[in-house]
Amino acid sequence: MVDKKLGGAGLRGQSAGETALCTVGKTGSGLTYRGYDIKDLAANAQFEEVAHLLLYGKLPNQTELTAYKARLKGMRGLPAPLKVVLENIPKDAHPMDVMRTGCSMLGNLETEQSDFSDQLDHMDRMLAVFPGLINYWYNFSHHGIRVEVETEADSIAEQFLWTLHNKKPEPLHVDVMHASLVLYAEHEFNASTFTGRVCASTLSDIHSVVTGAIGSLRGPLHGGANEAAMDMIENWQSADEAEANIMGMLERKEKIMGFGHAVYRESDPRNAIIKEWSNKLAEQVGDTRLYDVSERCEAVMWREKKLFCNADFFHASAYNFMGIPTKLFTPIFVCSRVAGWTAHAMEQRANNRIIRPSADYIGEDARDYVAIENR
Amino acid sequence: MVDKKLGGAGLRGQSAGETALCTVGKTGSGLTYRGYDIKDLAANAQFEEVAHLLLYGKLPNQTELTAYKARLKGMRGLPAPLKVVLENIPKDAHPMDVMRTGCSMLGNLETEQSDFSDQLDHMDRMLAVFPGLINYWYNFSHHGIRVEVETEADSIAEQFLWTLHNKKPEPLHVDVMHASLVLYAEHEFNASTFTGRVCASTLSDIHSVVTGAIGSLRGPLHGGANEAAMDMIENWQSADEAEANIMGMLERKEKIMGFGHAVYRESDPRNAIIKEWSNKLAEQVGDTRLYDVSERCEAVMWREKKLFCNADFFHASAYNFMGIPTKLFTPIFVCSRVAGWTAHAMEQRANNRIIRPSADYIGEDARDYVAIENR
Repeated sequence: MVDKKLGGAGLRGQSAGETALCTVGKTGSGLTYRGYDIKDLAANAQFEEVAHLLLYGKLPNQTELTAYKARLKGMRGLPAPLKVVLENIPKDAHPMDVMRTGCSMLGNLETEQSDFSDQLDHMDRMLAVFPGLINYWYNFSHHGIRVEVETEADSIAEQFLWTLHNKKPEPLHVDVMHASLVLYAEHEFNASTFTGRVCASTLSDIHSVVTGAIGSLRGPLHGGANEAAMDMIENWQSADEAEANIMGMLERKEKIMGFGHAVYRESDPRNAIIKEWSNKLAEQVGDTRLYDVSERCEAVMWREKKLFCNADFFHASAYNFMGIPTKLFTPIFVCSRVAGWTAHAMEQRANNRIIRPSADYIGEDARDYVAIENR
Repeated sequence: MVDKKLGGAGLRGQSAGETALCTVGKTGSGLTYRGYDIKDLAANAQFEEVAHLLLYGKLPNQTELTAYKARLKGMRGLPAPLKVVLENIPKDAHPMDVMRTGCSMLGNLETEQSDFSDQLDHMDRMLAVFPGLINYWYNFSHHGIRVEVETEADSIAEQFLWTLHNKKPEPLHVDVMHASLVLYAEHEFNASTFTGRVCASTLSDIHSVVTGAIGSLRGPLHGGANEAAMDMIENWQSADEAEANIMGMLERKEKIMGFGHAVYRESDPRNAIIKEWSNKLAEQVGDTRLYDVSERCEAVMWREKKLFCNADFFHASAYNFMGIPTKLFTPIFVCSRVAGWTAHAMEQRANNRIIRPSADYIGEDARDYVAIENR
């Protein structure tokens, strides 16, 4: 049944469909959302503007943005049975398992219509509810606090920090979160998005699509690089110690997370943006270690391996400076990428054929059955 | 970044990897699991033998089978927090959302090691626990009964019927369930299995893999065809009424579920097997309607469209004769296919590269950012 053998494993460089949402690495380093350069979006737009761009096809004007943010603000509440589920997940659970289960549970309580006529309601709902969802679990399991998720936060960026720390965050941190959420919002046919599109191609519901995507983002080869970077750099007390350790890791051929990319060849355009924010936060908190350590890692990796920082590396220090626990880094990724996942689901649904590839068979030839008494 | 454009949408006929588990339609109609013909397996093997074949690579001898069944029997219990979750899912939820959420919740309570050293424990656990999981929810939400899931049932086939009806089922029904579970256990790179493999390729955990696969099987273009067939045939009081209605549906070009297949060209080898069981069950219950209706549908679809019944069509009447509610048909599919999904996850992990295709960009050209006050 196989008409054509693909060149590389993992479908690398093979087109698996069409998209109008995003270009990655078109000029070797660029990233655009619907034609807009990520640098402009991250410097100028709130995350809600980017979510609107992805889901509704255009950057909103001020009236539209105000209405959209008000709509999202009204969708933050957690249904009581979902709170029960979150309260029954232990403290030592993997936070991405919590996200996956919370999203799936929401689908039981607020199920999408099978004709998808209410799809945007569910997509906006997920954008609105995810920050509170993970932080409700985190605060309950770790501190015994049932945090209020229906806050007065003005944005999803502020909502995440507010429900995590249970207080209104400072403006600089909200600005950083906006930029971070914008940077992570969309990235073409990465593994989690492709998981979601395969699911969407069966005409399954949007909670299945996003639940599946969360499960793939959980994988250490996909999301989680910023957590791994943090686990690494927090061990080092100085830039010199960092350099000595990186050199040792390179010598032992250990994998160093947060560098290089499957698609980008020259640089990751998201790095310069989050690095600048990390620098500002370092100055604000009076850091004399983590930012220097990070910069030295960047310099050594480039000098030794010509490997550049990807979006994840300086996210580690930036999140850390804002008091975000390392284990919540990848759930933040979910709070952002859900915009891209759901936009891709709409796109798949609008021009669908079920994604059902073939396989090369490498197993046993046809063989006779052996009755159990003769085995 | 796209090196080669694929011929068809949905990756149809394109190889996305290698497998030793299964061939589908190699001679136009065949299905083999690790080289064994589905006809021989369905006629002779218990479902546990097939699960052992898929997960452990060989058909077990009697000693191994006895030990494997004992192992699975010991893994049926539902953890208390999982019961709480199931009890908080409403009666009108989609049963596949319940399966998806139950599997995901289990991953919070019994998380796979990140080195996968305990993967087979979790795979067997899912095989053992899924029948009781869905029936615990079904009986609680529909009848207010907390059904005992740690039964004396000898097999997964018996366990499903026992926990559904809360009593030991009759031997004929257990035989039918064995055959049904064998028929649905594995089917190469179908959409749900491919979803699972994409997830596995990120090196995520097995609960993410299976949760994602459940979400894709939920889609009406994938699982659910036997439910749709049942919803159709139960309306008709006689074979003649069925024929008149089928003719009308064909005239109106309505989609008729349970016929044809994306890969098989001549026939679905699973149909003859489940049809024979449906016939036996019809005789047992003294049915004079549903089986005749089903046979007439088969005859008319072949006469008019040269479309054959796939595995799903006679499953509808067979399950119905055993008193299984239509809404639980696709969850039974999950209880079976989890063997194939998890075998594919192991295979993907053993020779992995992250599955990350590219896309053809059909969107806006690069364009200048417009400040919000100018939109």
